[in-house]
Amino acid sequence: MTVKLDQLIAQKMEERGVTLEEIAGLTHFLQSPYFPDLTIETCLENVKSVLKKREVQNAVLTGIRLDELAEEKMLGDVLQEMVESDYSLYGIDEILAFSILNVYGSIGFTNYGYIDKLKPGILGAIDKKGKTGESCQTFMDDLVGAIAAAAASRIAHRKGDELLE
Amino acid sequence: MTVKLDQLIAQKMEERGVTLEEIAGLTHFLQSPYFPDLTIETCLENVKSVLKKREVQNAVLTGIRLDELAEEKMLGDVLQEMVESDYSLYGIDEILAFSILNVYGSIGFTNYGYIDKLKPGILGAIDKKGKTGESCQTFMDDLVGAIAAAAASRIAHRKGDELLE
Amino acid sequence: MTVKLDQLIAQKMEERGVTLEEIAGLTHFLQSPYFPDLTIETCLENVKSVLKKREVQNAVLTGIRLDELAEEKMLGDVLQEMVESDYSLYGIDEILAFSILNVYGSIGFTNYGYIDKLKPGILGAIDKKGKTGESCQTFMDDLVGAIAAAAASRIAHRKGDELLE
Amino acid sequence: MTVKLDQLIAQKMEERGVTLEEIAGLTHFLQSPYFPDLTIETCLENVKSVLKKREVQNAVLTGIRLDELAEEKMLGDVLQEMVESDYSLYGIDEILAFSILNVYGSIGFTNYGYIDKLKPGILGAIDKKGKTGESCQTFMDDLVGAIAAAAASRIAHRKGDELLE
Repeated sequence: MTVKLDQLIAQKMEERGVTLEEIAGLTHFLQSPYFPDLTIETCLENVKSVLKKREVQNAVLTGIRLDELAEEKMLGDVLQEMVESDYSLYGIDEILAFSILNVYGSIGFTNYGYIDKLKPGILGAIDKKGKTGESCQTFMDDLVGAIAAAAASRIAHRKGDELLE
Repeated sequence: MTVKLDQLIAQKMEERGVTLEEIAGLTHFLQSPYFPDLTIETCLENVKSVLKKREVQNAVLTGIRLDELAEEKMLGDVLQEMVESDYSLYGIDEILAFSILNVYGSIGFTNYGYIDKLKPGILGAIDKKGKTGESCQTFMDDLVGAIAAAAASRIAHRKGDELLE
Repeated sequence: MTVKLDQLIAQKMEERGVTLEEIAGLTHFLQSPYFPDLTIETCLENVKSVLKKREVQNAVLTGIRLDELAEEKMLGDVLQEMVESDYSLYGIDEILAFSILNVYGSIGFTNYGYIDKLKPGILGAIDKKGKTGESCQTFMDDLVGAIAAAAASRIAHRKGDELLE
Repeated sequence: MTVKLDQLIAQKMEERGVTLEEIAGLTHFLQSPYFPDLTIETCLENVKSVLKKREVQNAVLTGIRLDELAEEKMLGDVLQEMVESDYSLYGIDEILAFSILNVYGSIGFTNYGYIDKLKPGILGAIDKKGKTGESCQTFMDDLVGAIAAAAASRIAHRKGDELLE
């Protein structure tokens, strides 16, 4: 199951407008200043590795489903309103993102916060789509930012190990 | 809104079989060994204060709604199966519980882990109900344990402050 | 004890080159785009409130002492080297920062990550001082960023409550 | 460096009275009810794998050094008093423990809380030693509990994967 779950999730994200290549673009944006030789291919491999982790899969499955349920008006009263409007004090979207970041230690949080604020690349596109109200992207943008930052952490950890060899 | 949201949540929990008094019972179980004079009333007041915190409200609203949506078979494939069966490696129920515990610092986690394993009082009843399959209690038991442990932390912090005066 | 501990900590930070006014400047940088009327005085009040929290005090006391012990070459071998050089994969400095952020919910992490990367105001000055090697600022910059971001969260929570009244 | 750091840490822990076999004993206590065939050898292998993780190494190095510095009366005033007395509202010991647990997802926290409260095996011995005042074990008990619980999570994740194959 786990083996294929990462593919199912990648497919799900694509259906909702985000490709793994676009997430890899964010990782490249974050790490290329430190590793000038870093390729998009390496970033993509690391994004794929992140998606193989159970904690990541569970956070993504839950968050995307909550976005969809908000679109279907299924969340009920107060919760529906908060998720639908991406209410800044809701915070559960960030909580799910942190469960992704935590798997790769504390170093990913800074990168996550940075791109969450700056919204480069696909993050800007998701944000725009969420704001037009054509779809709910409350969880998606945090999940995408967290996956990209987690992949950046994974690269940093591996480069760190190489230097020690 | 926030002012009344705690009451709305208390009502929601009661509808699903958990009273604030029962949560206060867990808090009493946790803290009475350290403070022999601690009354159920004080525990209840602290449980009520915990429920006034926005982070707590958002976690509870989200978790209970996910339990309900699992009962309505609305979570879709893999997620439906994991939440419905309270799959031990799902982990998002714990993640929401942690967002409650974190508000009162790190000291609540030990108490949470302890009662989550031991399942005294209402936690045992919730667990039993979840296992019969008559309802989904995957998030409820973690939320209840976290609220009780957070109230215990709140009491410990306040008692600590008194000793310093 | 707690009552005066916040003053002791403020004094300690000032001795090591950081004033509460400078931290309030970071909070203002973070929140003034959302609340144009926000004054530095309000930011300073919120920074002071953050410093009254026990979790914050304990993280700051521990982190600053570790910086000092690194200056005194007291950390021993591997740890000494990592703290002294602000090794990017050390991560315990971020861990202490998170214990500050968590008290005000998940919404502070984005702000923390953003200023940690951008290093505006006093954060740039701390970073520079740490890099010259004249003192160790490995924990200080993360603590200062976290206090500023926590104060920003506190303001956002309060403004959110006002809108609901 | 990393390759050998786990051995250096194991040696350090042994010098301070804790063997990896004793930590493996805690893991066995936690997981044998679920996997009756689980051997101490498997638990030990998993404890060793946990110690290879950078986040774990950094938390352990930092925590043990703080225990030692407390014994050498090097922490200064308030911090010295809190660490020396294992003050229940200090909380930074738990914070370091969480950075170990987080690497293996949320499922380890319950196990950590449970053994932290129950203090079976080596945890009881550490606690006793800390209380006599002959040495400071404020961080050690939380680190040991977290490593044991993290190894238990690692086993649960792996057994979960096997079932899916």
